[in-house]
Amino acid sequence: MTRIAVCQLAPAIGDLDGNRARALAALDAAADAGAQVVVLPELAASGYVFRDAGEARALAEPPDGPTVAGWAERAAARGLVVAGGFAEAGADGRLFNSAALVDAGGVRAVYRKAHLWDREAEVFTPGTDPPPVVDTPHGRIGLMVCYDLEFPEWVRTVALDGAQLLCVPTNWPAEPRPDSERPMEILKAMVHAATNRMAIAACDRCGTERGVDWVCGSVIVGPDGWLLAGPPGREPALLVADIDLAGARDKALGPRNDAHRDRRPALY
Amino acid sequence: MTRIAVCQLAPAIGDLDGNRARALAALDAAADAGAQVVVLPELAASGYVFRDAGEARALAEPPDGPTVAGWAERAAARGLVVAGGFAEAGADGRLFNSAALVDAGGVRAVYRKAHLWDREAEVFTPGTDPPPVVDTPHGRIGLMVCYDLEFPEWVRTVALDGAQLLCVPTNWPAEPRPDSERPMEILKAMVHAATNRMAIAACDRCGTERGVDWVCGSVIVGPDGWLLAGPPGREPALLVADIDLAGARDKALGPRNDAHRDRRPALY
Repeated sequence: MTRIAVCQLAPAIGDLDGNRARALAALDAAADAGAQVVVLPELAASGYVFRDAGEARALAEPPDGPTVAGWAERAAARGLVVAGGFAEAGADGRLFNSAALVDAGGVRAVYRKAHLWDREAEVFTPGTDPPPVVDTPHGRIGLMVCYDLEFPEWVRTVALDGAQLLCVPTNWPAEPRPDSERPMEILKAMVHAATNRMAIAACDRCGTERGVDWVCGSVIVGPDGWLLAGPPGREPALLVADIDLAGARDKALGPRNDAHRDRRPALY
Repeated sequence: MTRIAVCQLAPAIGDLDGNRARALAALDAAADAGAQVVVLPELAASGYVFRDAGEARALAEPPDGPTVAGWAERAAARGLVVAGGFAEAGADGRLFNSAALVDAGGVRAVYRKAHLWDREAEVFTPGTDPPPVVDTPHGRIGLMVCYDLEFPEWVRTVALDGAQLLCVPTNWPAEPRPDSERPMEILKAMVHAATNRMAIAACDRCGTERGVDWVCGSVIVGPDGWLLAGPPGREPALLVADIDLAGARDKALGPRNDAHRDRRPALY
């Protein structure tokens, strides 16, 4: 079993030092709870609701900047795999809404969000590389960001690449929904997990920012699609669940069916 | 607005005449309720749990056989579009788990299930043609069968072909799930609808058959992914919902996002 943690946080726009410190404290709390893989939100150090590209640029940093380096230091100190989102300043001057996967060996993957939501396109360049899937001591772990998860094609690429767990740093803006219903974002995470027999850990944010409210929908979903933890409510929270990630290599749906082998790729 | 109906029925294995009569009575009841598009279950005339291929063969019929011809007659008499499933005897002797879409003009499309569940593969040949999308007076309507709906690639082909409503005759075998949860099949229908901004009408069966129990999960889902009708419980039932199918041509998710245009097909 692997202990997965998701740290729902409330970043404050522009408060790089404070946001970084709160993320590191959350990693420590997760490690104290025995977590081995920990997910942080999208844009965890910068905040999300930039006034303009200039503000985003001032808050962006390269993958070897202090935010990701801080996670890597904690990953090494506490034996963690950490996935989290940051505003990436590319070497060519472009900005990306990125996520990093780090472990005791340092930065294992940097992924640039390929599907941009709303005004993100005024700030960020969409990525053009597929989502990474990284071998870790706990199994193969995939990585994508927020709105990427709305595209089943993208999730499928990660699953077909052998991911047993998909980590999704996210900032889900709240949308209206029927009172009795779960947020559709959570239903999507559940259905993607069940469709691919792959665990999903989605780390949302909370805390109203410049008038934007959030789903606060952090969840840990098992490979059968059912919720193991979350959503936690509207405050910062640590979610923990134990998952048999080795079992997520088995795509059997019954004695004669398999979620991946039953695909008809020649027809798609 | 278009009035959509789903007729959850309890076919009895092998009772062709009785099953056909109950389906026609359900079409009449739907027409009496003002329905314009009506969905029947998978294998509505034959039943599902065949003892072997020989029994299935004895219950199969061509697309111009009495089952589909009966639907077409009712469609003409009552001004309906009807989608339903039948055991198809192919001209070459092979059997297919098929669905037909008929309207006042006769049989508009026959689709052969491409993804076969469990022991179906001992009886049926999987289809190799994409799911049809048919122009009707109510808009473009797509058609697939049961386990097909578990493959987001298949749903996407229908949506990208312009379907505003996807009709899914189904026989969903019951699977264990947490007590507090909706069946995963229904969650998948909801998420597919939301992901593609396309309505989905799934018609399940009820009535235990040779020891197999069913989800009884018939639902009508709006293009936003929320349930408009169903599931109805474990008895035969008529579900009705009014949907603005013209609105399902609009894939906008907000001022700057579109469920289809935001795809990155060059990357998939």
